[in-house]
Amino acid sequence: MISQYAADETHRWVAAFSEALDARDAASAAALFGDECFWRDLAAFTWNVKTMEGGDEIAAMLAAQLDSVGPTVWRVEGEPTFAGGVLEAWLKFETKLARGRSILRLKDGRAWTLLTAIEELKGFEERKGPSRPMGVEHGIYRREKTWLEAKRGEEETLGTGRQPYCVVIGGGQGGIALGARLKQLNVPTIILEKNARAGDSWRNRYRSLVLHDPVWYDHLPYIPFPENWPVFTPKDKLGDWLEMYATVMELNYWGSSEAVRAAYDDDKKEWTVEVSRDGGRATLKPKQLVFATGAYGPPNVISLPGLENFKGQYFHSSRYKTGAPYADKDCIVIGANSSAHDMAADLWEYGGRVTMLQRSPTTVVRSETLMELGFEPLYSEGALEKRITTDKADLIFAATPFRLMPHTQVPIYKEVRRRDAPFYTRLAMSGFQVDFGQDESGLMMKAFRTGSGYYIDVGASDLIAKGHIPVRSGVEIRHVNERSVELTDGSELPADLIVMATGFQSMNRAVAPIISEDVADKVGKCWGLGSGVPGDPGPWEGEPRNMWKPTQQPGLWFHGGNLHLSRHYSLVLALQIKARMEGLPTPVFGLQKSHHTR
Amino acid sequence: MISQYAADETHRWVAAFSEALDARDAASAAALFGDECFWRDLAAFTWNVKTMEGGDEIAAMLAAQLDSVGPTVWRVEGEPTFAGGVLEAWLKFETKLARGRSILRLKDGRAWTLLTAIEELKGFEERKGPSRPMGVEHGIYRREKTWLEAKRGEEETLGTGRQPYCVVIGGGQGGIALGARLKQLNVPTIILEKNARAGDSWRNRYRSLVLHDPVWYDHLPYIPFPENWPVFTPKDKLGDWLEMYATVMELNYWGSSEAVRAAYDDDKKEWTVEVSRDGGRATLKPKQLVFATGAYGPPNVISLPGLENFKGQYFHSSRYKTGAPYADKDCIVIGANSSAHDMAADLWEYGGRVTMLQRSPTTVVRSETLMELGFEPLYSEGALEKRITTDKADLIFAATPFRLMPHTQVPIYKEVRRRDAPFYTRLAMSGFQVDFGQDESGLMMKAFRTGSGYYIDVGASDLIAKGHIPVRSGVEIRHVNERSVELTDGSELPADLIVMATGFQSMNRAVAPIISEDVADKVGKCWGLGSGVPGDPGPWEGEPRNMWKPTQQPGLWFHGGNLHLSRHYSLVLALQIKARMEGLPTPVFGLQKSHHTR
Repeated sequence: MISQYAADETHRWVAAFSEALDARDAASAAALFGDECFWRDLAAFTWNVKTMEGGDEIAAMLAAQLDSVGPTVWRVEGEPTFAGGVLEAWLKFETKLARGRSILRLKDGRAWTLLTAIEELKGFEERKGPSRPMGVEHGIYRREKTWLEAKRGEEETLGTGRQPYCVVIGGGQGGIALGARLKQLNVPTIILEKNARAGDSWRNRYRSLVLHDPVWYDHLPYIPFPENWPVFTPKDKLGDWLEMYATVMELNYWGSSEAVRAAYDDDKKEWTVEVSRDGGRATLKPKQLVFATGAYGPPNVISLPGLENFKGQYFHSSRYKTGAPYADKDCIVIGANSSAHDMAADLWEYGGRVTMLQRSPTTVVRSETLMELGFEPLYSEGALEKRITTDKADLIFAATPFRLMPHTQVPIYKEVRRRDAPFYTRLAMSGFQVDFGQDESGLMMKAFRTGSGYYIDVGASDLIAKGHIPVRSGVEIRHVNERSVELTDGSELPADLIVMATGFQSMNRAVAPIISEDVADKVGKCWGLGSGVPGDPGPWEGEPRNMWKPTQQPGLWFHGGNLHLSRHYSLVLALQIKARMEGLPTPVFGLQKSHHTR
Repeated sequence: MISQYAADETHRWVAAFSEALDARDAASAAALFGDECFWRDLAAFTWNVKTMEGGDEIAAMLAAQLDSVGPTVWRVEGEPTFAGGVLEAWLKFETKLARGRSILRLKDGRAWTLLTAIEELKGFEERKGPSRPMGVEHGIYRREKTWLEAKRGEEETLGTGRQPYCVVIGGGQGGIALGARLKQLNVPTIILEKNARAGDSWRNRYRSLVLHDPVWYDHLPYIPFPENWPVFTPKDKLGDWLEMYATVMELNYWGSSEAVRAAYDDDKKEWTVEVSRDGGRATLKPKQLVFATGAYGPPNVISLPGLENFKGQYFHSSRYKTGAPYADKDCIVIGANSSAHDMAADLWEYGGRVTMLQRSPTTVVRSETLMELGFEPLYSEGALEKRITTDKADLIFAATPFRLMPHTQVPIYKEVRRRDAPFYTRLAMSGFQVDFGQDESGLMMKAFRTGSGYYIDVGASDLIAKGHIPVRSGVEIRHVNERSVELTDGSELPADLIVMATGFQSMNRAVAPIISEDVADKVGKCWGLGSGVPGDPGPWEGEPRNMWKPTQQPGLWFHGGNLHLSRHYSLVLALQIKARMEGLPTPVFGLQKSHHTR
């Protein structure tokens, strides 16, 4: 009965919606949405990553885009479901240029949320499965190039004889996933990586690092991790995987290469990128330039009075490798987020005497609990049993607009606190300050808002609770002496090592030294939603700033994030780039303004 | 109606069969089989790869094995089907030690064929999916090894401090697939490969080589080729894949390493293997030694009268690299099978004047036709759409006993000839002699019987038909002169190059120089079924000789074949080895006798 109701309601709504769109009637289409409503679009309607909030914004978007986009053929996929007053249906649709998938949620017969996500461009479909390449044209021809000869030919000429259409700065998981998508779309691309080999950006990090996200969340496109892959991937194993991935996906991956300077020619609509490659120089002339330099910008190095006279060692967490040299040494870790925890634990493992200086409260969640309450529904063996594949999980996750996301998180963290109450009590008794964000929405919202302020506990919290790693909370360093630090509460701690786990600047600051301060300021801060919490000033923007979508600088893009985001949004970004390469019309709706330069 | 009939019949038969087995009543169980009947077992009942033919052999096997094997719990998987008078059902079963899968085919209510295949050992299940390893034990401990440190520790100690349980000689697809299975089963294993890197055995072959089998047939275990992989894999691309596979599967892969000598100690039940590694020496003491040196043994070099005075170049096809040096040269290719065709075509591509000397008729099938008629039902996109996954396809293929296999092939080749009649006419007019085997069963039976005598046409036949590559059929070289060859028909051909595409000796001959002639003779010829056709002398053996099963030499095994066989039988062989390592009882039924030494 419920399923018949859900099917009927869905068909009724989709029919009315189709009709309104066919009639190019933006107002009628918008009227099918409820009083509270959201349309999140991933490059299918807006050629942007954009959430329209409320009927007016939806109507405005449709009025601007309907003619050029020309949506058609809405089909319901599978069986709509109805639970808790919300009807959910999966749809497929087409536009003049593309095919897409959609998740529709109805309340009382009107749309509450709608996701529209581009999946492929018509006429430029990826060759896979039944349309995979043959690998060889049968028939023997003289002077035919083998696969290897063709590949070497491309490697030798791309970037010298022939120019890439796209250059990606940064060859971590972001650059690699995007590079793989672009390769499949036949977009000539060069990836620049400052380390020698793909995977080194992980290998070079501190020895004990293991992914805190589970395997089901971490797949790359095209080649998922195999069934025997561990739940939490050790950094060097991930490094090996990325290296093999870049090879077998046949990426043009330039190791030991850095973009030194880049400038955009507004007339030619083309970049000139000066590259230092293996000590030599190269000049690239791509039309599109992507920064995939990690989720963060340059290290946020704080100034500490007296540091110049310090006789010990000090560095930013990004330069941390191992605790081995610090056995029996007095170590100060400034900060109390993920890397601060990992490094404090690593120093302790090697026999260092570590003190953690917590500057502000931290959201801590035990890994087991997060796995069960956070990841289980979408990214787990259980989800796979329910046929929620990685692709589906990504779409389901993307279907909730950022405005509503905190509401989905608050109940999770209520349960987290209830379940792990003894853990939080022990942690609090050690002096460590825990919070769950201003609105109690927890870890993931902190990640999207500020990219900091949290730790998924894989053991360090226990060391803190036991007093193995003493914590000084709510204090700062007032002055650094030769072999000690004075805190703002007047106390003094001996110090042979100071690690500043003080975070990173915004990603756009990485643009400044390569392109210019002007362009870095023009595109503005990356990441953050404009939620108004400290570190994420308003106005509300509704989407991560600058990520995977057009910016205020033509031809400049940002890509990155964890493996999940790198996987999913690499498709959205790759299709935007491919459409431009093929000269398809890509009218951008609602190009974001820049409100903050850092 | 049919499906109900099929389900009822299956349940009736399985219930009676279970009851007979539970009662340890071999005669009653055998009586459930028809007059013509076959039970093919892959290490589940016989600890052997064995086909019992007829009720008497089945009864004898059960009488010998029932008590120790202790089969239980037969369950029907999915829906049995009924077509053409044959009812087919998939079963799962357990024994005391193992779990297995089975395909049952009934005719008139009695078993016609039964396949029983081991899938896993109880208590030694591979950790995958829901039981995959965590990758990290949560909690921070002092002196804990990271993944990398543990891996390096194993690499440094295995084969020096700690001895491997198993040594695999040969690191092509066979050794790699087996190594991956053994790794997952925690069997300490070292793979010896004479080339520097995994994949080199493919990279080092002639430049134009591309797999003649399609991608769906070629997957390795654990990590299937991705959806964008080409249908026919170029050799260097396969090389890269194998190399990454060996790395990410964490195999102990010793490149630039060769087994120089190996001797078995009957008392210790242990091998001593002298290894040349990177120019140095190592001594390994494994309990099990596997030859995975390719489907073939050493090259079959024929003696040609007068060759000592030849002023041109000559070599066996295994040493062929490229036709580049032979532009405008007179080239003689002796042989007319796969490699002869590929090399003749390669020489022609480079502008050589090639003549092919066909010594006996060849089975030629156009690749497109073979894809459609041969591979499509089990290994294709179409098969995947019907949910015939690679694992299922392998079992379906394995379910037909070798005695019946020719009957399944004859109709295919009737259709091949009908469909490609113009092609065969053109080929015949060029003087090329085509056959389809003594019993018209075609290419695959030739592969299983003699491993030679066929070519999957990817273009060279067209060059022959057009006269670009002239063929001399039914002749041999009578004498080699300084710059020419005289044929047995009295004619003379100019010659700057002679390539002997004259095949390979049996795999057991590779044993002789490493272990001894005695052991090579004792284990006898590998491959071939005893079909009685030339090159595969009787008596009928019913299974490929010596492959993936115990041999007359304790602790000595053979593994290999194309990617399909390497994938599927690596599991069967790995579980036999694992069972021995764990000290499980593995009474072998019907250990094959050796009838031929080469």
